[in-house]
Amino acid sequence: MKNEVLDSLLTPKSVAVVGASATPGKIGYSVMKNLIDGGYKGAIYPINPSAEEILGIKCYPSISDVSGSVDAAIITVPSKLVDGVTDEIGRKGVKGMIVITSGFSEVGNRDLELALVKKANSYGTRVLGPNIVGVLSNTDKFNGSFAPFLPLPGKASLVSQSGALLIALDAATYTRRVGFDKLISIGNMSDVDFADIVSWLDNDPNTSCITLYIEGFKDGRAFIDAARKASKPIIALKAGVSAHGAAAAASHTGSLAGAAKVYGAALQQAGVIQATDLDNLFDRTLALSQQPPMKGDNLLIITNGGGVGVLATDAAERSGLPLKFAPADVQLELKKHMPEFGSAKNPVDLTGMAGNDWYGDSVRYSFAHPWTEGLVVLYCETAITDPMQIAQAIKKAVDESGVKDKPITVSFVGGEKSEVAMRWLVENGIPAYGAPDVAVDAISSLREFSRMKALSAQTTEPCAAFDSEAAREVIRKARADGRDSLTEIEAKEVFSAYGMPVTSTELARTEDQAVALAKKIGFPVVMKIVSPDILHKSDAGGVKVNIKDETGVREAFKTIMKNAKEYKATADIHGIAVQEMAPWGTEVILGSVNDPTFGPTIMFGLGGIFVEVLKDVTFRVAPVADTQARRMLDEIRGAPILAGVRGEEARDREALSDVICQYSTMILDLKDEIAESDANPVLVYEHGSGLKVVDARIILKKK
Amino acid sequence: MKNEVLDSLLTPKSVAVVGASATPGKIGYSVMKNLIDGGYKGAIYPINPSAEEILGIKCYPSISDVSGSVDAAIITVPSKLVDGVTDEIGRKGVKGMIVITSGFSEVGNRDLELALVKKANSYGTRVLGPNIVGVLSNTDKFNGSFAPFLPLPGKASLVSQSGALLIALDAATYTRRVGFDKLISIGNMSDVDFADIVSWLDNDPNTSCITLYIEGFKDGRAFIDAARKASKPIIALKAGVSAHGAAAAASHTGSLAGAAKVYGAALQQAGVIQATDLDNLFDRTLALSQQPPMKGDNLLIITNGGGVGVLATDAAERSGLPLKFAPADVQLELKKHMPEFGSAKNPVDLTGMAGNDWYGDSVRYSFAHPWTEGLVVLYCETAITDPMQIAQAIKKAVDESGVKDKPITVSFVGGEKSEVAMRWLVENGIPAYGAPDVAVDAISSLREFSRMKALSAQTTEPCAAFDSEAAREVIRKARADGRDSLTEIEAKEVFSAYGMPVTSTELARTEDQAVALAKKIGFPVVMKIVSPDILHKSDAGGVKVNIKDETGVREAFKTIMKNAKEYKATADIHGIAVQEMAPWGTEVILGSVNDPTFGPTIMFGLGGIFVEVLKDVTFRVAPVADTQARRMLDEIRGAPILAGVRGEEARDREALSDVICQYSTMILDLKDEIAESDANPVLVYEHGSGLKVVDARIILKKK
Repeated sequence: MKNEVLDSLLTPKSVAVVGASATPGKIGYSVMKNLIDGGYKGAIYPINPSAEEILGIKCYPSISDVSGSVDAAIITVPSKLVDGVTDEIGRKGVKGMIVITSGFSEVGNRDLELALVKKANSYGTRVLGPNIVGVLSNTDKFNGSFAPFLPLPGKASLVSQSGALLIALDAATYTRRVGFDKLISIGNMSDVDFADIVSWLDNDPNTSCITLYIEGFKDGRAFIDAARKASKPIIALKAGVSAHGAAAAASHTGSLAGAAKVYGAALQQAGVIQATDLDNLFDRTLALSQQPPMKGDNLLIITNGGGVGVLATDAAERSGLPLKFAPADVQLELKKHMPEFGSAKNPVDLTGMAGNDWYGDSVRYSFAHPWTEGLVVLYCETAITDPMQIAQAIKKAVDESGVKDKPITVSFVGGEKSEVAMRWLVENGIPAYGAPDVAVDAISSLREFSRMKALSAQTTEPCAAFDSEAAREVIRKARADGRDSLTEIEAKEVFSAYGMPVTSTELARTEDQAVALAKKIGFPVVMKIVSPDILHKSDAGGVKVNIKDETGVREAFKTIMKNAKEYKATADIHGIAVQEMAPWGTEVILGSVNDPTFGPTIMFGLGGIFVEVLKDVTFRVAPVADTQARRMLDEIRGAPILAGVRGEEARDREALSDVICQYSTMILDLKDEIAESDANPVLVYEHGSGLKVVDARIILKKK
Repeated sequence: MKNEVLDSLLTPKSVAVVGASATPGKIGYSVMKNLIDGGYKGAIYPINPSAEEILGIKCYPSISDVSGSVDAAIITVPSKLVDGVTDEIGRKGVKGMIVITSGFSEVGNRDLELALVKKANSYGTRVLGPNIVGVLSNTDKFNGSFAPFLPLPGKASLVSQSGALLIALDAATYTRRVGFDKLISIGNMSDVDFADIVSWLDNDPNTSCITLYIEGFKDGRAFIDAARKASKPIIALKAGVSAHGAAAAASHTGSLAGAAKVYGAALQQAGVIQATDLDNLFDRTLALSQQPPMKGDNLLIITNGGGVGVLATDAAERSGLPLKFAPADVQLELKKHMPEFGSAKNPVDLTGMAGNDWYGDSVRYSFAHPWTEGLVVLYCETAITDPMQIAQAIKKAVDESGVKDKPITVSFVGGEKSEVAMRWLVENGIPAYGAPDVAVDAISSLREFSRMKALSAQTTEPCAAFDSEAAREVIRKARADGRDSLTEIEAKEVFSAYGMPVTSTELARTEDQAVALAKKIGFPVVMKIVSPDILHKSDAGGVKVNIKDETGVREAFKTIMKNAKEYKATADIHGIAVQEMAPWGTEVILGSVNDPTFGPTIMFGLGGIFVEVLKDVTFRVAPVADTQARRMLDEIRGAPILAGVRGEEARDREALSDVICQYSTMILDLKDEIAESDANPVLVYEHGSGLKVVDARIILKKK
């Protein structure tokens, strides 16, 4: 969808530099100089009441004195002056403000920042920043920033939340030979945020890959929506994944939901490819910006050295693309282009005797072969070959193959000659890397992209009918009691309202009621104390299981009541829950947190040691569609337990996926009510036999 | 220990080139040219019966015609001529043969290779190769290879099993700015192997770090011994760790012991630092060759950019060096060298305003501070600073600090100017990298080195007295029966002979014997079928547990016999084992394989799902000293189970460590007898209460 306001902001046809200066060293001078040096073709209007002209360009005392229209204003005046110029900018009808000025929320001046955005928006003007380096675009030869030059041209665009890193990476584009069309500094994200820019770049004809350096989102859910709708590859490096800072939380789920895990889950759901570090961000960006997605798992590797072939094979397995042998016809053909002791299996080892022709013939044939879905070509610099000639042979073969819908990456291990050859390859659209595993990792990111697109193409609608009003009524009653947590019985009523199967549980206030309920539910039963003041029921001696008859019920009632009173004399005791005793099944745990960035987020894991010892859990931001729920079941380490181990039947993964959807629907629908929740344990039975939520807990948001 | 034969081979004072040629394109020409171009100062004797001189140097028809002494002969004649020249070389008293010639075991001609080594050794001559690129040494300006030039000078030495990779890496030393003193191509390792060269390099005054590219060892145990004795850092990239190729094996342990896991364990035991890929091998080599070990975990990071600081913090946690806040006095001092909004905690953020002075002052002070045990300095290229000046300020501060026993690494993120500055830093002994996480990973390898040295300094002697003869007697009897596996009772006798506590188990041939044994052992008992033909006793209905009295024993005896006969009518039934019923404990599994490369290798893991589902096991090559055994307990994912979870007592890890030592002693002592073994389950009790081996299995080597 076109966004004309952002067009004005990010590809302006005319700019005003508010705070332009003739004094070298000032940011208002750097921006002017960079605009001119960059070769910007649009109109430049320096604004400064005390100058006639700056760097040979007529200067205006105020933006209102400019007669032509202005698309964007770059702000470099001190923060205390920004409010005043915003009015002038708004009145002039300027659609975009690129606010380089710092001194806002990053140093605690949150109100100043809010006022800026409010005022700008009131004129229909959007704000990028404040506290940014600026915007750079090769297509527009627009360097509206204080970074000294435009980046190496290319087809990716980078959005960075760190200004210092953006300047450093700008220079690094040349040494790392990874080109960008746009560099966008996003700073404090007071108004325009990652979601806005991702959507806009997805429509930018000069961007083929969206590269993000993220420290944190303001609105995670908006980002997920924008990223999911994008059709171009998005790759992100999320900084700040160390353990410290996981919020203290009342529930089990809360304590397991560190920021790193939730961000990881959210980016995965959003279809965003993740980079492990800066090198990886650059390396993957190069492949994603130059090559088409890899549509299947058939990766072929061609090499002239056994050693790099083995390293690439290891890397392929690590990257989730384990090599398979090439089909017989491929092997037969390739055998013609290698000596007797070469290998045509996979990796295809042309041996150190391989020259330009063997490389060319092998690449042309195998890239065009329908079996091949991705090709990695490796080359070890030798004394008898010239890296540039090998590079040219590869490029020519790729062109002659006529293939345009499969990716290729290349690795040359060698010295300066190889560097020059790789630079040439990159300039000609073939991503080239100095190590074999990096070439494999890069092509695996193209495979990941197509896998993610296939997944996110599937529905993400909440998947169950539910009775929101019934759930809210339960919560209203608890709040009316002055409580901010539900009892087990209440929590199960809420779960039930969203279609989740819970063990039948009813409240008995007297011994006789308990007997009547037990008879109605059917023996054996479980009995548990119900009191908002007793959260750890077992510790209080408040739980009795496998009660087989009326005598048992009467004894249990007396004992539990006695224990509860001894445990906490002042406890408000609602009574005793009489509960269906669920047969044994595989224990799993579901839970939720209301993440400060992403909102309602669901956790799933196996119970017992898997969660207690191994922290073997996985997260998704709600809602979770069925396919994503199935993926959650598969991505925990204990997944084989659900698939059935040692000849056991598989567990009912379908029912479990449904409950994950229902749970996610519940926490989303009740996002203003539920702070945290657990269903622990949930007992899952054999395939076809469903599951039961045995214990439930809901902690309400404080109101 | 000095090795004069290897001195002759690797640092010859005079060389003969057997097969020297005047024809460009021939290897015998390349070697001559490379020796001359490299600037070799020793005598060069070309050997070729049909030339007078080659490249201006007098040529000899045979090495026996050379009048001076010859330290090493470089062989480039075709493989069929090698046998003949070996005699001449041997008679001449040449101590080293550098056999570049290929066409030996790598193409199946194993006998030719064995004959070569046998003949050479008979003269006291050692063979490097065959099938190698050669030997290169900057110190000796010796390029005895067909790689076209000497590598960038440096203090590391590289040993490579891949010739193609060695040539390519030779060139790459210049572009990656990682210097080497020696490059040694090791090829088929017919005689001189990794162990020999590691020992020799450890004594080489011009080598400070030993860098290995390994595809596979011939004798893994010799390598471990050599590496463990070395005092210099050794770093290895092991290629070929993909899953395929794990041998089919009869035991549980066998199926879990993939080559990658056993190599990983062996390198760890050997004190060898492992690289994950080629880039990592180079990056870590640079730090290990230029900087001292890091003796503690206190890592300080200084930066001018928040973004790279956060990335480095993440990397530090990944690398096992999570950051701690700097002490108060350090913070107080550093606060003087930054603006108000900087941070003196850790990372120390000097902010984008940092210039040469702030960098210099901060580095000088904090590197010298006793709290700091390692320092990483990060720099993001900015418009207001000059990378070279920052580099010089860092170097000057390091020198002025007077510190020589702590490591420092540096990362500059930027363009060409930063590249030049980093090159200067490396030339001046400070490892510098283009990404912050790489600088952190590099310093973490120096921490790993000192941790490993501390471990391998501890004893590695087998740790228990044992009765080898008793064990061998049991095995002899089984072999006399024509069997190649032991029964459970026999296996337990063997385990007992090495001091391991097993459940009392005796064989009853009749019902009455069973009753008598049960009374002797004490109720309750377990009864199990004993038959070399029934390996899966439970499946055969051959196990009864918790038998409480005489009646139970009689019933069980009849039932088990009946079941066993139904299961396999022809089974050779020895009788029924009557066994002490061990109380419940934490299940662990021990096992062993006789690894083709490393010999007897022990496996440890927790039982049940940990081994079945999670493959959560760890390996060591026997013998395993007590400290290594303790490390094994800590390195499985389920380690918290042994430490005690949810308020439980810790398990008896001391007893378990002892049993690991005893088990490793057993498989080493009986290495010619035992193919594979399992103790599964072993029940481990609370701290101080020991453990019991409940079931045992030994599969003998076929003889």
